[in-house]
Amino acid sequence: VEFAGTHLIIDLWDVCRIDDPEHIEKSLCDAAVRAGATILSSDFHVFTPNNGVSGVIVLSESHISIHTWPERNFAAVDVFMCGAAKPHKTIEALQEAFSPSRIGLTEHRRGLSV
Amino acid sequence: VEFAGTHLIIDLWDVCRIDDPEHIEKSLCDAAVRAGATILSSDFHVFTPNNGVSGVIVLSESHISIHTWPERNFAAVDVFMCGAAKPHKTIEALQEAFSPSRIGLTEHRRGLSV
Repeated sequence: VEFAGTHLIIDLWDVCRIDDPEHIEKSLCDAAVRAGATILSSDFHVFTPNNGVSGVIVLSESHISIHTWPERNFAAVDVFMCGAAKPHKTIEALQEAFSPSRIGLTEHRRGLSV
Repeated sequence: VEFAGTHLIIDLWDVCRIDDPEHIEKSLCDAAVRAGATILSSDFHVFTPNNGVSGVIVLSESHISIHTWPERNFAAVDVFMCGAAKPHKTIEALQEAFSPSRIGLTEHRRGLSV
Protein backbone atom coordinates (compact mmCIF):
# COMPACT_ATOMS: atom_id res chain seq x y z
CA VAL A 1 0.00 0.00 0.00
CA GLU A 2 1.47 3.31 -1.09
CA PHE A 3 -0.72 6.31 -0.49
CA ALA A 4 -0.05 9.24 -2.81
CA GLY A 5 -2.79 11.67 -1.81
CA THR A 6 -6.48 12.41 -1.46
CA HIS A 7 -8.49 13.36 -4.53
CA LEU A 8 -11.91 14.89 -3.95
CA ILE A 9 -14.48 15.00 -6.76
CA ILE A 10 -16.92 17.76 -5.85
CA ASP A 11 -20.12 18.56 -7.77
CA LEU A 12 -21.86 21.80 -6.82
CA TRP A 13 -25.51 22.41 -7.73
CA ASP A 14 -27.54 25.63 -7.65
CA VAL A 15 -24.48 27.79 -7.33
CA CYS A 16 -24.02 31.53 -7.77
CA ARG A 17 -21.22 33.69 -9.21
CA ILE A 18 -19.84 30.94 -11.42
CA ASP A 19 -19.66 33.27 -14.43
CA ASP A 20 -17.21 35.59 -12.67
CA PRO A 21 -13.63 34.42 -13.32
CA GLU A 22 -12.06 36.83 -10.84
CA HIS A 23 -14.35 35.66 -8.06
CA ILE A 24 -13.70 32.02 -8.96
CA GLU A 25 -9.92 32.36 -9.07
CA LYS A 26 -9.83 34.31 -5.81
CA SER A 27 -12.11 31.76 -4.14
CA LEU A 28 -10.08 28.76 -5.25
CA CYS A 29 -6.83 30.40 -4.16
CA ASP A 30 -8.48 31.07 -0.79
CA ALA A 31 -9.57 27.42 -0.62
CA ALA A 32 -6.01 26.26 -1.33
CA VAL A 33 -4.58 28.47 1.40
CA ARG A 34 -7.18 27.30 3.92
CA ALA A 35 -6.18 23.71 3.15
CA GLY A 36 -2.57 24.57 3.88
CA ALA A 37 -1.47 24.13 0.27
CA THR A 38 1.14 26.14 -1.65
CA ILE A 39 0.07 27.73 -4.95
CA LEU A 40 2.53 27.40 -7.85
CA SER A 41 0.44 28.80 -10.69
CA SER A 42 -3.11 29.42 -11.80
CA ASP A 43 -4.65 29.45 -15.25
CA PHE A 44 -8.24 30.49 -15.97
CA HIS A 45 -10.25 30.63 -19.20
CA VAL A 46 -13.70 32.05 -19.95
CA PHE A 47 -15.89 30.58 -22.67
CA THR A 48 -18.48 32.24 -24.86
CA PRO A 49 -21.41 32.55 -25.10
CA ASN A 50 -22.33 31.29 -21.64
CA ASN A 51 -19.41 32.70 -19.60
CA GLY A 52 -18.50 29.26 -18.35
CA VAL A 53 -15.11 29.25 -16.67
CA SER A 54 -12.39 26.59 -16.65
CA GLY A 55 -9.55 27.06 -14.25
CA VAL A 56 -6.74 25.10 -12.67
CA ILE A 57 -4.48 25.98 -9.78
CA VAL A 58 -1.30 23.90 -9.67
CA LEU A 59 -0.11 23.33 -6.10
CA SER A 60 3.06 21.96 -4.57
CA GLU A 61 0.60 19.34 -3.25
CA SER A 62 -1.09 18.62 -6.67
CA HIS A 63 -4.00 20.73 -8.00
CA ILE A 64 -7.48 22.23 -7.77
CA SER A 65 -9.64 22.52 -10.88
CA ILE A 66 -13.05 24.01 -11.62
CA HIS A 67 -15.33 23.97 -14.65
CA THR A 68 -18.58 25.91 -14.52
CA TRP A 69 -21.85 25.80 -16.45
CA PRO A 70 -23.66 29.07 -15.57
CA GLU A 71 -26.66 28.15 -17.72
CA ARG A 72 -27.21 25.13 -15.45
CA ASN A 73 -26.00 26.68 -12.19
CA PHE A 74 -23.58 23.76 -11.98
CA ALA A 75 -19.86 23.62 -11.18
CA ALA A 76 -17.50 20.61 -11.23
CA VAL A 77 -14.51 20.90 -8.90
CA ASP A 78 -11.70 18.52 -8.11
CA VAL A 79 -9.16 18.89 -5.32
CA PHE A 80 -6.08 16.66 -5.27
CA MET A 81 -3.65 17.12 -2.38
CA CYS A 82 -0.77 15.06 -1.11
CA GLY A 83 1.41 15.62 1.93
CA ALA A 84 0.20 17.48 4.99
CA ALA A 85 -2.45 19.61 3.23
CA LYS A 86 -6.05 19.09 4.28
CA PRO A 87 -8.19 18.92 1.12
CA HIS A 88 -11.53 18.70 2.94
CA LYS A 89 -10.97 22.22 4.23
CA THR A 90 -11.59 23.51 0.71
CA ILE A 91 -15.25 22.50 0.91
CA GLU A 92 -16.11 25.23 3.40
CA ALA A 93 -14.44 27.79 1.15
CA LEU A 94 -16.41 26.53 -1.86
CA GLN A 95 -19.66 26.77 0.10
CA GLU A 96 -18.96 30.34 1.10
CA ALA A 97 -17.91 31.33 -2.42
CA PHE A 98 -20.68 29.73 -4.47
CA SER A 99 -23.55 28.99 -2.05
CA PRO A 100 -24.51 25.58 -3.48
CA SER A 101 -27.83 24.13 -2.36
CA ARG A 102 -26.38 20.66 -2.82
CA ILE A 103 -22.90 19.14 -2.93
CA GLY A 104 -21.87 15.76 -4.32
CA LEU A 105 -18.60 14.50 -2.86
CA THR A 106 -16.53 11.45 -3.76
CA GLU A 107 -13.14 10.73 -2.28
CA HIS A 108 -10.34 8.78 -3.94
CA ARG A 109 -7.24 7.76 -2.06
CA ARG A 110 -4.81 7.82 -4.97
CA GLY A 111 -1.99 5.32 -5.25
CA LEU A 112 -3.35 2.70 -2.91
CA SER A 113 -2.74 -0.77 -4.29
CA VAL A 114 -5.64 -3.02 -3.41
CA VAL B 1 -30.50 14.54 -15.04
CA GLU B 2 -27.98 16.93 -16.54
CA PHE B 3 -24.79 15.36 -17.79
CA ALA B 4 -21.78 17.67 -17.81
CA GLY B 5 -19.00 15.31 -18.87
CA THR B 6 -16.95 12.21 -18.15
CA HIS B 7 -14.18 12.37 -15.57
CA LEU B 8 -11.69 9.51 -15.55
CA ILE B 9 -9.46 8.90 -12.51
CA ILE B 10 -6.48 6.91 -13.77
CA ASP B 11 -3.77 5.44 -11.54
CA LEU B 12 -0.70 4.09 -13.34
CA TRP B 13 1.68 1.67 -11.60
CA ASP B 14 5.17 0.53 -12.64
CA VAL B 15 5.54 3.30 -15.16
CA CYS B 16 8.60 4.60 -16.99
CA ARG B 17 9.74 8.08 -18.09
CA ILE B 18 7.70 9.88 -15.44
CA ASP B 19 10.67 12.07 -14.46
CA ASP B 20 10.88 13.58 -17.95
CA PRO B 21 8.64 16.67 -18.16
CA GLU B 22 9.05 17.09 -21.93
CA HIS B 23 8.02 13.50 -22.57
CA ILE B 24 5.09 13.85 -20.18
CA GLU B 25 3.81 17.09 -21.69
CA LYS B 26 4.15 15.79 -25.25
CA SER B 27 2.40 12.54 -24.31
CA LEU B 28 -0.52 14.28 -22.62
CA CYS B 29 -0.95 16.66 -25.53
CA ASP B 30 -0.96 13.64 -27.85
CA ALA B 31 -3.56 11.98 -25.61
CA ALA B 32 -5.75 15.09 -25.78
CA VAL B 33 -5.55 15.22 -29.56
CA ARG B 34 -6.37 11.52 -29.89
CA ALA B 35 -9.46 12.10 -27.78
CA GLY B 36 -10.55 14.85 -30.13
CA ALA B 37 -10.05 17.60 -27.55
CA THR B 38 -8.77 21.13 -28.13
CA ILE B 39 -5.77 22.31 -26.08
CA LEU B 40 -6.01 25.81 -24.62
CA SER B 41 -2.91 25.87 -22.42
CA SER B 42 -0.49 23.65 -20.57
CA ASP B 43 1.46 24.21 -17.39
CA PHE B 44 4.12 21.82 -16.06
CA HIS B 45 6.27 21.91 -12.94
CA VAL B 46 9.20 19.71 -11.84
CA PHE B 47 9.91 19.08 -8.17
CA THR B 48 13.19 18.41 -6.43
CA PRO B 49 14.79 16.18 -5.34
CA ASN B 50 12.85 13.34 -6.96
CA ASN B 51 12.03 14.92 -10.33
CA GLY B 52 8.33 14.38 -9.77
CA VAL B 53 6.25 16.28 -12.32
CA SER B 54 2.91 18.03 -11.93
CA GLY B 55 1.19 19.18 -15.07
CA VAL B 56 -2.19 20.31 -16.27
CA ILE B 57 -3.51 20.80 -19.76
CA VAL B 58 -6.60 22.99 -19.94
CA LEU B 59 -8.91 21.97 -22.78
CA SER B 60 -11.94 23.52 -24.40
CA GLU B 61 -13.56 20.32 -23.11
CA SER B 62 -12.19 20.59 -19.50
CA HIS B 63 -8.70 19.28 -18.52
CA ILE B 64 -6.07 16.56 -18.19
CA SER B 65 -3.76 16.49 -15.18
CA ILE B 66 -0.82 14.33 -14.14
CA HIS B 67 1.23 14.05 -10.96
CA THR B 68 4.17 11.65 -10.89
CA TRP B 69 6.18 9.95 -8.13
CA PRO B 70 9.32 8.60 -9.88
CA GLU B 71 10.62 7.08 -6.63
CA ARG B 72 7.50 4.87 -6.55
CA ASN B 73 7.06 4.42 -10.32
CA PHE B 74 3.55 5.76 -9.82
CA ALA B 75 1.57 8.39 -11.73
CA ALA B 76 -1.89 9.81 -10.98
CA VAL B 77 -3.79 11.11 -14.01
CA ASP B 78 -7.23 12.56 -14.40
CA VAL B 79 -9.04 13.25 -17.65
CA PHE B 80 -12.21 15.34 -17.66
CA MET B 81 -13.91 15.92 -20.99
CA CYS B 82 -17.31 17.23 -21.94
CA GLY B 83 -18.88 17.54 -25.36
CA ALA B 84 -17.99 15.25 -28.25
CA ALA B 85 -14.46 14.38 -27.05
CA LYS B 86 -13.76 10.74 -26.23
CA PRO B 87 -11.82 10.64 -22.93
CA HIS B 88 -11.28 6.87 -22.97
CA LYS B 89 -9.06 7.28 -26.03
CA THR B 90 -6.44 8.90 -23.81
CA ILE B 91 -5.79 5.57 -22.06
CA GLU B 92 -4.12 4.03 -25.08
CA ALA B 93 -1.86 7.07 -25.35
CA LEU B 94 -0.96 6.83 -21.65
CA GLN B 95 -0.11 3.13 -22.05
CA GLU B 96 2.18 3.85 -24.98
CA ALA B 97 3.87 6.76 -23.23
CA PHE B 98 4.47 5.28 -19.78
CA SER B 99 4.18 1.48 -20.17
CA PRO B 100 2.30 0.81 -16.91
CA SER B 101 2.09 -2.79 -15.76
CA ARG B 102 -1.22 -1.98 -14.11
CA ILE B 103 -3.92 0.67 -14.50
CA GLY B 104 -6.61 1.65 -12.02
CA LEU B 105 -9.59 3.34 -13.69
CA THR B 106 -12.65 4.95 -12.14
CA GLU B 107 -15.22 6.85 -14.16
CA HIS B 108 -17.41 9.69 -12.90
CA ARG B 109 -20.24 11.05 -14.94
CA ARG B 110 -20.16 14.61 -13.64
CA GLY B 111 -23.30 16.64 -13.16
CA LEU B 112 -25.77 13.80 -13.05
CA SER B 113 -28.38 14.39 -10.39
CA VAL B 114 -29.35 11.14 -8.76
